[in-house]
Amino acid sequence: MTTAPAFQDLYLDERADCWGCGRNNPDGLYIKSYWEGDEAVAHFSPKPEHMGHKGVLNGGIIAALVDCHCIGLAMADGHRREGRQIGTEPLITYVTGSLKVDYLKPTLLNGSPVELRARVEKVDGRKTWMTCTLSSGGQVTARGEVLGVRINEVPSGENQRTKED
Amino acid sequence: MTTAPAFQDLYLDERADCWGCGRNNPDGLYIKSYWEGDEAVAHFSPKPEHMGHKGVLNGGIIAALVDCHCIGLAMADGHRREGRQIGTEPLITYVTGSLKVDYLKPTLLNGSPVELRARVEKVDGRKTWMTCTLSSGGQVTARGEVLGVRINEVPSGENQRTKED
Repeated sequence: MTTAPAFQDLYLDERADCWGCGRNNPDGLYIKSYWEGDEAVAHFSPKPEHMGHKGVLNGGIIAALVDCHCIGLAMADGHRREGRQIGTEPLITYVTGSLKVDYLKPTLLNGSPVELRARVEKVDGRKTWMTCTLSSGGQVTARGEVLGVRINEVPSGENQRTKED
Repeated sequence: MTTAPAFQDLYLDERADCWGCGRNNPDGLYIKSYWEGDEAVAHFSPKPEHMGHKGVLNGGIIAALVDCHCIGLAMADGHRREGRQIGTEPLITYVTGSLKVDYLKPTLLNGSPVELRARVEKVDGRKTWMTCTLSSGGQVTARGEVLGVRINEVPSGENQRTKED
């Protein structure tokens, strides 16, 4: 059972422009991620134009789904560790340090949604390591690993941010 | 100096639907890759909606660019090793086995194109390992690694393919 609101629906308006998951993007994927126990779950219905090879979901779209879903998880997890939700102060923001996707088999583009399931594997200072599966028709077709890096933001924020190792 | 035609313009019509690079996709990125010596080079002009954080190119779009650019390189390289171009028989097709992107710094979304440069690092049987940089304003902002895997296709091809390790 997923419970509303989605992580991304709690992002500040000034952070909701993302092509992968921002509710304010004019032409994005609008990924919505939810807690389900210790996992973050998202369902996404690809459009016909999200094709790679004929009849198969594009690998770049899969990478984008894994990326935004996991960064949403990093943010939700960062807040949860402080007993609060995304959207409460002080702001906790993560960006992608690295992304890896293994494409195990073709993800059929047949009108069915895909399911993403991600979990936090390790947190060390500013860094959060996550793993993610993408499933279609009950089969895992891709596996992802994402490193999220917490950044310092100036809240009035015209893109002033630093990422430190 | 890049020389036309782009790798992707030589793909068979039945392989030109890709969201990342297919000329026949109704709403794709239309990546175009060219030989420049032993490197494959592509320039891409992001649209405003390709945003991640405000003012920064989305990481999923970067992953998609790296993916399609490198797979184009794998196909061009496979044909070049046989002294011919993509589009000549017999068909040589690659799919993505794995994709890794390290995001080194924000790629500013400021109206300027980004540049992708990829090269083949190793070929072993069906597998081709490639590295790729993405640069913006003369700075490398992301580095990618892609494993391309050659597949067997049935030329009349309704998505009948096998990927073997």
